[in-house]
Amino acid sequence: MKYDVAIIGGGPAGYTAAEKAAKGGLSTVLFEKNALGGVCLNEGCVPTKTLLYSAKTYDQIKHASKYAVSAENPTFDYPKIIARKNKVVKKLTAGIRMKMKESGVEVVAGEAMIQGKTAEGDLLIQCGEQIYEAKNLLVCTGSESVIPPISGVNETEYWTSREALQSKELPASLIIIGGGVIGMEFASFFNSMGTEVQVVEMLDKILGPMDKELSDMLQAEYAKRGVKFYLGHKVTGIHGSEVTVEKDGESFTLHGEKVLLSVGRRPITKGFGLETLALEPFRNGIKVNEYMQTSLPNVYACGDITAFSLLAHTAVSEAEVAIDHILGKSRAMSYKAIPGVVYTNPEIAGVGKTEEELKASGTPYQVKKIPMAFSGRFVAENEMGNGVCKLILAEDGTLIGAHLLGNPASELIVIAGIAIEKGMKAEEIKSFVFPHPTVGEIIKEAL
Amino acid sequence: MKYDVAIIGGGPAGYTAAEKAAKGGLSTVLFEKNALGGVCLNEGCVPTKTLLYSAKTYDQIKHASKYAVSAENPTFDYPKIIARKNKVVKKLTAGIRMKMKESGVEVVAGEAMIQGKTAEGDLLIQCGEQIYEAKNLLVCTGSESVIPPISGVNETEYWTSREALQSKELPASLIIIGGGVIGMEFASFFNSMGTEVQVVEMLDKILGPMDKELSDMLQAEYAKRGVKFYLGHKVTGIHGSEVTVEKDGESFTLHGEKVLLSVGRRPITKGFGLETLALEPFRNGIKVNEYMQTSLPNVYACGDITAFSLLAHTAVSEAEVAIDHILGKSRAMSYKAIPGVVYTNPEIAGVGKTEEELKASGTPYQVKKIPMAFSGRFVAENEMGNGVCKLILAEDGTLIGAHLLGNPASELIVIAGIAIEKGMKAEEIKSFVFPHPTVGEIIKEAL
Repeated sequence: MKYDVAIIGGGPAGYTAAEKAAKGGLSTVLFEKNALGGVCLNEGCVPTKTLLYSAKTYDQIKHASKYAVSAENPTFDYPKIIARKNKVVKKLTAGIRMKMKESGVEVVAGEAMIQGKTAEGDLLIQCGEQIYEAKNLLVCTGSESVIPPISGVNETEYWTSREALQSKELPASLIIIGGGVIGMEFASFFNSMGTEVQVVEMLDKILGPMDKELSDMLQAEYAKRGVKFYLGHKVTGIHGSEVTVEKDGESFTLHGEKVLLSVGRRPITKGFGLETLALEPFRNGIKVNEYMQTSLPNVYACGDITAFSLLAHTAVSEAEVAIDHILGKSRAMSYKAIPGVVYTNPEIAGVGKTEEELKASGTPYQVKKIPMAFSGRFVAENEMGNGVCKLILAEDGTLIGAHLLGNPASELIVIAGIAIEKGMKAEEIKSFVFPHPTVGEIIKEAL
Repeated sequence: MKYDVAIIGGGPAGYTAAEKAAKGGLSTVLFEKNALGGVCLNEGCVPTKTLLYSAKTYDQIKHASKYAVSAENPTFDYPKIIARKNKVVKKLTAGIRMKMKESGVEVVAGEAMIQGKTAEGDLLIQCGEQIYEAKNLLVCTGSESVIPPISGVNETEYWTSREALQSKELPASLIIIGGGVIGMEFASFFNSMGTEVQVVEMLDKILGPMDKELSDMLQAEYAKRGVKFYLGHKVTGIHGSEVTVEKDGESFTLHGEKVLLSVGRRPITKGFGLETLALEPFRNGIKVNEYMQTSLPNVYACGDITAFSLLAHTAVSEAEVAIDHILGKSRAMSYKAIPGVVYTNPEIAGVGKTEEELKASGTPYQVKKIPMAFSGRFVAENEMGNGVCKLILAEDGTLIGAHLLGNPASELIVIAGIAIEKGMKAEEIKSFVFPHPTVGEIIKEAL
């Protein structure tokens, strides 16, 4: 049997594409060598949110007196926190398995290996003993943690996010190398749990390309809570629990029970025969056009392998665009409004342009910025601190960027994302009826 | 001095209109006899949310073990809960006072009395000793609790929402007459606090016009938590702490320490000389056109007095429309996407059409409905129960209604509201990038 679509990798890109393809009437086979859901569901986004919610609950008890509520001896059961996380993951992977079944996707558990093309241009993929033939191939193999070539790293039992999520023992102290999104979510979690946390970051700010002002505010908040930051510091050696860092030629050593490496992720392009197709590369991944086609028109790449955005929701959107293209409903992938979200407490989220980008490109813009405390609901629910809503407008009043610090920024940012995607102006956004009292009103208020 | 705009009433309609008018260059005077912020801020939306958040914190401690966190002897300090509420209200009213000052609004504390019109059609308003003349008048006097003419009610020390928010003593038991939004938010709060709650509702469902299926689910949840509901029951007498109810000709008596009356609110049209203008009425309020003009073109009415929606965010939008009209930027008020939100725990929110409405009018529609548990983040953060996302599409795929049960429905409903206001179809809404993992993704998922 020849399939319409073969998909390698069952993460957010792969399972979204598979379901959509099958529902669209295409015969679809999905290869996954580990667990459906990919890194995101099994050892990324969802497990961290589960742990972070336990941490938030614990924090809330500790600070309940701010709301005139109290309890004695707050504590937690760490192995149970990990067990709950595993239970949530299991429930959600089961949900994806069910979706695949219901939509008629053939899921093949095993390592797929691309064998090449037939004379007609169809793809041949081997898995186990069997050869599968498909008119279209989606490569959705995702990414893996980058292990930087630091002296001593190979002799050290470091953690990546994977091990940090599995360990049933809470370290007394932790050195996090890399203060990006992953690093900061773990810093938040372990800080709440009482671990002494140190964060080393090579750049002069945490959270990579997110708005600098808000990132700095978040950092100050975590510094107040006891996290130690070493910004602009380069790690020159890892030996057991000792991490040597350097700044401006000066070197010193940090000590921690555990070391977590979170310096970034890199596309997985090897180990499944991709080289036989000789696709055009992009950065350390695969080049695609606006329909997610690689340099071979019937081979698509979606998700982290495109080396572009490395976010689950980007992967999902790319998968939808690819399948729509196969189904003949061409629409170009838009990267105009991809939200970035960090699930610290408070959360920080951004979409569209940052001031830093606009300054760098010399684009004129105006900023509308107000404290979150302008929202009555925010005040009613946040005795712990303030936040900021920063909106960026083009000269003609079109919303081009939005950056929020304060809960539930993660849930609100899509409102700004939709406005940016649609090219809406401030006047129009203000005319929408935001329910009162909500935190989301802050967007209207800021404009 | 002749003002461009005079506004009677400093609630959400009045203070929004005043700020916008003054910023738009109009000389503006605002009369408020009690406190800026109106019922919403001083004894409505915001204070209830403050109390509800303390209740939520208390509940979270009691159920923390579901997240592998625990604490002993959870308790609360009721007078402090009320004191925190007062502090939050004070902070927010101060914020509004500051906004009025910054934008150049003249705020007059006192009872305004409309005296009539000049020969040129300007309005004359007396406050204290002084007469104010204004080219335009906005009537934003709001609403008050309806006290139904039940036998014995005048001899009983009942609560309305005002007294319920002020009492520093927690009643052991409470009978709530009226299971609408206000009644249910108080039921939720007092139930969390350990008060024995009984809700009497004349209709066969709680929460008035909100989606019946979701309202019933919420009711079942609160019934499980111990709230007793008497639906389809009419109150025939209130005598002290005894409430006599009747259904199908059978009568019986409920006993409670306190009685809360929350059967509805009614526009305030008397006590400030409105009758001198002889405006055309609508229901028990004032008739307006799409620019919020009454039957006198330079007299506008905004907010609860229009007897239409009785929601703070409607009032805000109406005020903006009215001032835009005065400023010569005519745009019609749209009631297409006014969200309704109930801050129970879980929250329930709806916008646009309900199935009940569509069935009644014989309009064809399709429903897209999925459990909230399809959202990974919802699962990670809600061990307490499930929820529902119900979206209603017109035959051509345009979103015309959205109804959510589950936190944070209040913050998510505006996403659907914007889509409804803009007449978006399912395909377009699905093409937006919703950050993962968020609860908001459920909207995309459901479609």
